[in-house]
Amino acid sequence: MAKNPTGKGSSSRREGSGRAISESTTERLSIYLRCLTQLERAGVETISSKEMAQRFQLNSALIRKDLTYFGEFGMRGVGYNVPELRSHIVQILGLDRELRVAIIGAGNLGQALADYRGFNSEGCRIVVLFDVAPEKVGTQSRGGVPVRHVDMLEQTLRDEKVNIVALAVPSGQGQALLERAAAAGVRAVLNFVPDRLRPPEGVFIRNVDLKIQLEGLAFQLARVQ
Amino acid sequence: MAKNPTGKGSSSRREGSGRAISESTTERLSIYLRCLTQLERAGVETISSKEMAQRFQLNSALIRKDLTYFGEFGMRGVGYNVPELRSHIVQILGLDRELRVAIIGAGNLGQALADYRGFNSEGCRIVVLFDVAPEKVGTQSRGGVPVRHVDMLEQTLRDEKVNIVALAVPSGQGQALLERAAAAGVRAVLNFVPDRLRPPEGVFIRNVDLKIQLEGLAFQLARVQ
Repeated sequence: MAKNPTGKGSSSRREGSGRAISESTTERLSIYLRCLTQLERAGVETISSKEMAQRFQLNSALIRKDLTYFGEFGMRGVGYNVPELRSHIVQILGLDRELRVAIIGAGNLGQALADYRGFNSEGCRIVVLFDVAPEKVGTQSRGGVPVRHVDMLEQTLRDEKVNIVALAVPSGQGQALLERAAAAGVRAVLNFVPDRLRPPEGVFIRNVDLKIQLEGLAFQLARVQ
Repeated sequence: MAKNPTGKGSSSRREGSGRAISESTTERLSIYLRCLTQLERAGVETISSKEMAQRFQLNSALIRKDLTYFGEFGMRGVGYNVPELRSHIVQILGLDRELRVAIIGAGNLGQALADYRGFNSEGCRIVVLFDVAPEKVGTQSRGGVPVRHVDMLEQTLRDEKVNIVALAVPSGQGQALLERAAAAGVRAVLNFVPDRLRPPEGVFIRNVDLKIQLEGLAFQLARVQ
């Protein structure tokens, strides 16, 4: 993915954006949401930032800072009410309504994403895959997501009220599909294509660069060996 | 992926770890590496942190801070020497030697990862896939990565001198495979399994949670609509 210079999700990281919320903050909110979901399932009713930090190997000062940014959630000496904080974060992240996701490209990656357990959970639903291969169009992913022809892209995106498109097509095909999706009203794109795409006005792009995770491990290995 | 409470890569984020380098720092180094690779290809010889920030929508103060952390690279008034800085970052990230990667699970996700362009580039090589399905064992991914039986796991990991294992198996199968890989000498694991795994002593785990990217987009959509 060498052509994708700013790595994942650089589109919201801009110089001088002042109080704009950084991607790392929203990523941490997602992480807190995972923790709180697990705590709620385990029947835990309140938790302090310190306990939460210890239990999930997080930074307690950062938890407090991140959460006060969005309002006063905790009670001094008592901690956070788990179900309440959880539903606040669900709201902050905009997961309190259904996000309808379409995946363009029904190759291995597109099919894997369509059936990826995390995608079809709270707030998100994969509604359709697109491809051009005649042997794929008209079939379904293992999990039951239908594959339509890319010729039907604009109409299907509108009919299915798609909010987010994931691009999982070969290099070189991303920009044109991005523009078609934007013209059909899609405002958010998760880009797995290893090219730098130019976002149309008003469209958010997150670039996913899986190599970054591998490089993080390489770095840790290099320091111990 | 609700069961994976700390999201991706929490293993290196610990309370009170002092000067330990955070995952966000290594992620940014990866991003700088993408930028520098692109600049080098374009024939750019020197660049200031400010130019680099503008060109790639990054934060110039953070670039300077991150890089001085690893030594003095820039020259005041001149900027960074692009090829030199690039090769320093390659070294820091431990990509100056070949990392040999095995993927356990040859389903859609495993196959997609095996042929993912970014994985088979600088410093990394996917050498083998593992599966249990008789119709997959003995075949190859589209890109030519051979699929072996999981029964051969330990021996193959040793023979192929594998450094990093990516787990792309169904939920519930990760822990046992993690322990087998660790027993065969693997010290770094990229986990796509939506379960919280307990790392054996001395093993680094990065959990990849693709839903976090979706949630980041959900957050941005919620703020504009």
